[in-house]
Amino acid sequence: MRPSKRRPDQLRSVQITRHYTRHAEGSVLIECGDTRIICTASVDEKVPLFLRGKGQGWLTAEYGMLPRSTNERMQREAAKGKQSGRTMEIQRLIGRALRSVMDLTKLGERTIQVDCDVIQADGGTRTASITGAFVAVHDAIGTLLRKQAIEATPITGHVAAVSVGVYEGVPMLDLDYLEDSRCDTDMNIVMTDDLGLVEMQGTAEGMPFSRNDLDMMLDLAQQGIRELIAAQKNALNR
Amino acid sequence: MRPSKRRPDQLRSVQITRHYTRHAEGSVLIECGDTRIICTASVDEKVPLFLRGKGQGWLTAEYGMLPRSTNERMQREAAKGKQSGRTMEIQRLIGRALRSVMDLTKLGERTIQVDCDVIQADGGTRTASITGAFVAVHDAIGTLLRKQAIEATPITGHVAAVSVGVYEGVPMLDLDYLEDSRCDTDMNIVMTDDLGLVEMQGTAEGMPFSRNDLDMMLDLAQQGIRELIAAQKNALNR
Amino acid sequence: MRPSKRRPDQLRSVQITRHYTRHAEGSVLIECGDTRIICTASVDEKVPLFLRGKGQGWLTAEYGMLPRSTNERMQREAAKGKQSGRTMEIQRLIGRALRSVMDLTKLGERTIQVDCDVIQADGGTRTASITGAFVAVHDAIGTLLRKQAIEATPITGHVAAVSVGVYEGVPMLDLDYLEDSRCDTDMNIVMTDDLGLVEMQGTAEGMPFSRNDLDMMLDLAQQGIRELIAAQKNALNR
Amino acid sequence: MRPSKRRPDQLRSVQITRHYTRHAEGSVLIECGDTRIICTASVDEKVPLFLRGKGQGWLTAEYGMLPRSTNERMQREAAKGKQSGRTMEIQRLIGRALRSVMDLTKLGERTIQVDCDVIQADGGTRTASITGAFVAVHDAIGTLLRKQAIEATPITGHVAAVSVGVYEGVPMLDLDYLEDSRCDTDMNIVMTDDLGLVEMQGTAEGMPFSRNDLDMMLDLAQQGIRELIAAQKNALNR
Amino acid sequence: MRPSKRRPDQLRSVQITRHYTRHAEGSVLIECGDTRIICTASVDEKVPLFLRGKGQGWLTAEYGMLPRSTNERMQREAAKGKQSGRTMEIQRLIGRALRSVMDLTKLGERTIQVDCDVIQADGGTRTASITGAFVAVHDAIGTLLRKQAIEATPITGHVAAVSVGVYEGVPMLDLDYLEDSRCDTDMNIVMTDDLGLVEMQGTAEGMPFSRNDLDMMLDLAQQGIRELIAAQKNALNR
Amino acid sequence: MRPSKRRPDQLRSVQITRHYTRHAEGSVLIECGDTRIICTASVDEKVPLFLRGKGQGWLTAEYGMLPRSTNERMQREAAKGKQSGRTMEIQRLIGRALRSVMDLTKLGERTIQVDCDVIQADGGTRTASITGAFVAVHDAIGTLLRKQAIEATPITGHVAAVSVGVYEGVPMLDLDYLEDSRCDTDMNIVMTDDLGLVEMQGTAEGMPFSRNDLDMMLDLAQQGIRELIAAQKNALNR
Repeated sequence: MRPSKRRPDQLRSVQITRHYTRHAEGSVLIECGDTRIICTASVDEKVPLFLRGKGQGWLTAEYGMLPRSTNERMQREAAKGKQSGRTMEIQRLIGRALRSVMDLTKLGERTIQVDCDVIQADGGTRTASITGAFVAVHDAIGTLLRKQAIEATPITGHVAAVSVGVYEGVPMLDLDYLEDSRCDTDMNIVMTDDLGLVEMQGTAEGMPFSRNDLDMMLDLAQQGIRELIAAQKNALNR
Repeated sequence: MRPSKRRPDQLRSVQITRHYTRHAEGSVLIECGDTRIICTASVDEKVPLFLRGKGQGWLTAEYGMLPRSTNERMQREAAKGKQSGRTMEIQRLIGRALRSVMDLTKLGERTIQVDCDVIQADGGTRTASITGAFVAVHDAIGTLLRKQAIEATPITGHVAAVSVGVYEGVPMLDLDYLEDSRCDTDMNIVMTDDLGLVEMQGTAEGMPFSRNDLDMMLDLAQQGIRELIAAQKNALNR
Repeated sequence: MRPSKRRPDQLRSVQITRHYTRHAEGSVLIECGDTRIICTASVDEKVPLFLRGKGQGWLTAEYGMLPRSTNERMQREAAKGKQSGRTMEIQRLIGRALRSVMDLTKLGERTIQVDCDVIQADGGTRTASITGAFVAVHDAIGTLLRKQAIEATPITGHVAAVSVGVYEGVPMLDLDYLEDSRCDTDMNIVMTDDLGLVEMQGTAEGMPFSRNDLDMMLDLAQQGIRELIAAQKNALNR
Repeated sequence: MRPSKRRPDQLRSVQITRHYTRHAEGSVLIECGDTRIICTASVDEKVPLFLRGKGQGWLTAEYGMLPRSTNERMQREAAKGKQSGRTMEIQRLIGRALRSVMDLTKLGERTIQVDCDVIQADGGTRTASITGAFVAVHDAIGTLLRKQAIEATPITGHVAAVSVGVYEGVPMLDLDYLEDSRCDTDMNIVMTDDLGLVEMQGTAEGMPFSRNDLDMMLDLAQQGIRELIAAQKNALNR
Repeated sequence: MRPSKRRPDQLRSVQITRHYTRHAEGSVLIECGDTRIICTASVDEKVPLFLRGKGQGWLTAEYGMLPRSTNERMQREAAKGKQSGRTMEIQRLIGRALRSVMDLTKLGERTIQVDCDVIQADGGTRTASITGAFVAVHDAIGTLLRKQAIEATPITGHVAAVSVGVYEGVPMLDLDYLEDSRCDTDMNIVMTDDLGLVEMQGTAEGMPFSRNDLDMMLDLAQQGIRELIAAQKNALNR
Repeated sequence: MRPSKRRPDQLRSVQITRHYTRHAEGSVLIECGDTRIICTASVDEKVPLFLRGKGQGWLTAEYGMLPRSTNERMQREAAKGKQSGRTMEIQRLIGRALRSVMDLTKLGERTIQVDCDVIQADGGTRTASITGAFVAVHDAIGTLLRKQAIEATPITGHVAAVSVGVYEGVPMLDLDYLEDSRCDTDMNIVMTDDLGLVEMQGTAEGMPFSRNDLDMMLDLAQQGIRELIAAQKNALNR
């Protein structure tokens, strides 16, 4: 049995709260078990230099953790004066994942700036960031549509992410911190609503994993993504 | 009448939620109107170099704003690679204010690290940080007392802070963002529960202010601080 | 009796030397007792981005200390690669204080860049910087008037600053380093020549201070500011 | 047909030159087609702080590109003052991949510091870095064994890496720059000599990829890794 | 006898390999004994701000060492986040030396960006960088001439550099690392092909040197420069 | 005739004021014509890591310019967050020059930290820094001798520095800013009182210089150094 007492294929409970803060065009609190992240999507009426004049938009993401979102207080990155490699890796992943369901030519010359800030961490912050940020982006696009700043939505489908892993030889879905820190393999999967693979990043922390392990993990991920996209749709319909 | 429709001497509604996040020894969400700040107090079992071996503790504070806590998205300080002068000024103020009610010799050689992170900003973030952080520190000290790491509380009294200002010639209590950006004088007052002055920082944004204005602002501040300390006590008794 | 042997209401001797260095439009050496600061005002024929095209000017200030201006050598901020929080706080204060007596719409689209560099420190460097920099700005404006770059002076009055404190229970004017490091309360007051309050920043280092202490400190400050503005006028008439 | 005229399952020609530079304990030039990388392994007789006193060793990696290793000159990271997110991501990957075949308890309290510096880039620099660095590490360990600094090798197997992708709908092995920049999916696979998966990082640049695509890519990768490990063994036997 | 067994006036063997890497307009590997440096010259179709619109070009240089190009691994400057004073000093020297034989008005509004990256160091890296970079610049200019981007070559002559020193009282040419670290005086000389002096930088590491020592060192340098320029010409004729 | 109306072999007037500021163990204002520099020498009772436990001392130097010491205001290096290549080059030169007349084994395990801060610049700031800093170091050593912290002076002789150049074909001594910016060759010479050469750094800004030019420049430098060392001795005898 896993430390969290969940079944191997059991997701943590997910809550997606829209309009969580007041200023952003899209603002979502996502809670996956004890992991809590504020995801905002801000509209910036310009594009980065490399896209200027090309008639298309951009989406980019930043990620941060409150210093005491974790069990041991981490040093504040703003005070240290630089973002860690882990932070950079995660924010690049979030950006790529969200762009995979955006037709940026329909956005016009503007940028959707996503911010994912972890209030409380219990594993899976990068995947929850993607799942939550999709809803925030959806709301920001909704604002643009209502203002008639764009004619059609650039969003081409849903995208969500979940972690899977091999814990004591058994493939498992949606690892919390304790499970993650003890597992042999840790993999993050990003999928669209038609179950196309957008990103997969797997690391064998201890033993290498086999292609059979991989298949079982992908089965679990597929099921988890389906539930997470259902939760996104649910939240967007409220 | 002021933009917020409040009376000149009327504080915004204050909510202090303890145990807001799970990991920190003290964790508080303070809400003053639309201003929402997470204040955590973490215990670090060492002191900075300049105090090592002196048999006393230390308390220090850091402050940050989520990029989209404000109306316009601000650049993330971690991404920019440095904290602004404003951030540094505020975190130094929070640290001094909280140390004013701490007998650090009773803390032992450990540091209370305070983090104030603004989730949503509507004026008065530095004063709300102080008011909320006091409660988080109180809870962190409580943890140390329960673990018998210290014998007696180092806390010597309550401390809270509030802003006052002169808006269209009339002194007013607890300015929100709109009031703050239009007022002539903006002053932040930090006081203890016996109404001793700990910090005062006043700036004439437009016209200089007179000693008479100052007196009226101090009267308002005194009343506001009383109410805020009552809210702190209330929260600590729950 | 105070360590400096001065009476509680006695300012240190003040010397203001204009045209101290050759290149700047305004260049002043101010000496307050053993505190010696070079204040220069440079004219830059452009404004920061946020003011471009608005038909008004700007004034900004920077502050630094020579590494061995103090008793213990401080690390050079340029070598460390960042300015301390204290430095940032002081230079923001100097800028605000000087802007309080400038009608920036009369300056045209140019910036007055003030630099205050402490050659020797003995307490009160931020207040002496303000008092000295005012004269440097006055000279820089004089250059612009003589060149007919502007038609009328943007300067609307004098501004000067002084510290006050409570030392062993007695309010005192213009603390030197020794007095400052032992006092209970330390307050910096910035006033105009009609004794309007522009900035006040008070900190209780030990015991909180009362409103009665505050009143006595303000009386002292008022008297000190009057003498400092007389010294400015004296220097400007030479 | 692919731009490089290779068959879909055809690796670029691989050259591994040992003892390429004189100072490092292990120094390898790896050439995969036009991609050329110097990989060195240096022995440092201490471990990072977090491992001090734990009786085990560490392996860490850094990665860089000469500014004109690419078609367009890139800004020198040392001059810019920071490493890009891409650089950090790659060097973290190289370190994890190499540690997967190291029993660090057999290394003693020392660190193997790997440096991978790209002299000329034509796609696949991160995977070639891993393949080449393994040989450099092997040589550095050889030095320690010959000096009898360690008793048994900490190396538990071979590790190598290769890229695979989907180019115009067809899965392909070992993409060069041109192929990489036009392909729909780009995946980097790290495997051991018993074909255990150590890392997989796949990104759909255009269309999401299916599990069937993934299977075909893994088949290709498996074959490529076999050939690369044969090349490593070949080089180590010379 | 000197540690390297060479005669006092004997240069190390020099190899200049053109077209060493594929992307740069000029790319040279220079080997002086065990010192090996990749020198590239890249053409950038713009000039720095201070030259914009002046109808002339610019040439600038950067210098770096691979972390393990030296006997002890050096910290990577990109990871440290800043270039050392030594690095800055060397790259400024390389730029000045190369500009001394360039008529920048004939280059048009473009910049030649030189990069000198030390693959293996054994003394004399800054002088070998200059000698090698000249050839790379020559090739980059050749590219511009062939493309008819410029009409006439901006190159006005050859430039090369060599070190001389006083080792155990005897002036010697072209010091390797061992000789350099033990010598009393270390001097770098940059000369044109008509033996005009462009740069000389001499440092007495131990005893000061006399004008007689200086004369003997200059005689040696003159001879060395002649041989190095012959090697440049040789390489350019191949 | 030269712009400054001086004869080719005429030094600017030199003033060396000791005890210029109060806190440093040695504090000197040196004025060479309009160039004015504060040179302080501070005693630090420890040595850098690389010398710890070796029973010898160290001397190091830092250099800075006040932002408006020059005709155009320069950006403050502390605000920019890094020192320029020029600054680093100069402070390394000052350190080497002063160490050339120090027997560091007689200093004990302490560091002399030299700071040269340019108050007003008119050419020759690096050479004046060396000449002035020698006197400050002499005073700091005097303090150590008086306190009997050391038994014998580590100072082995005088050191001073001067610039020479070729201006319109004529070698000249001690260039001011105007002369320096128009001259063909600019050379800085550091010599001891027995006229041993410690450093020479010459750059042909326009035409290369000949060995004959060099000889004439060295004759001028020799004479200038003699006068500067006489001024140092004079100041030290007052």
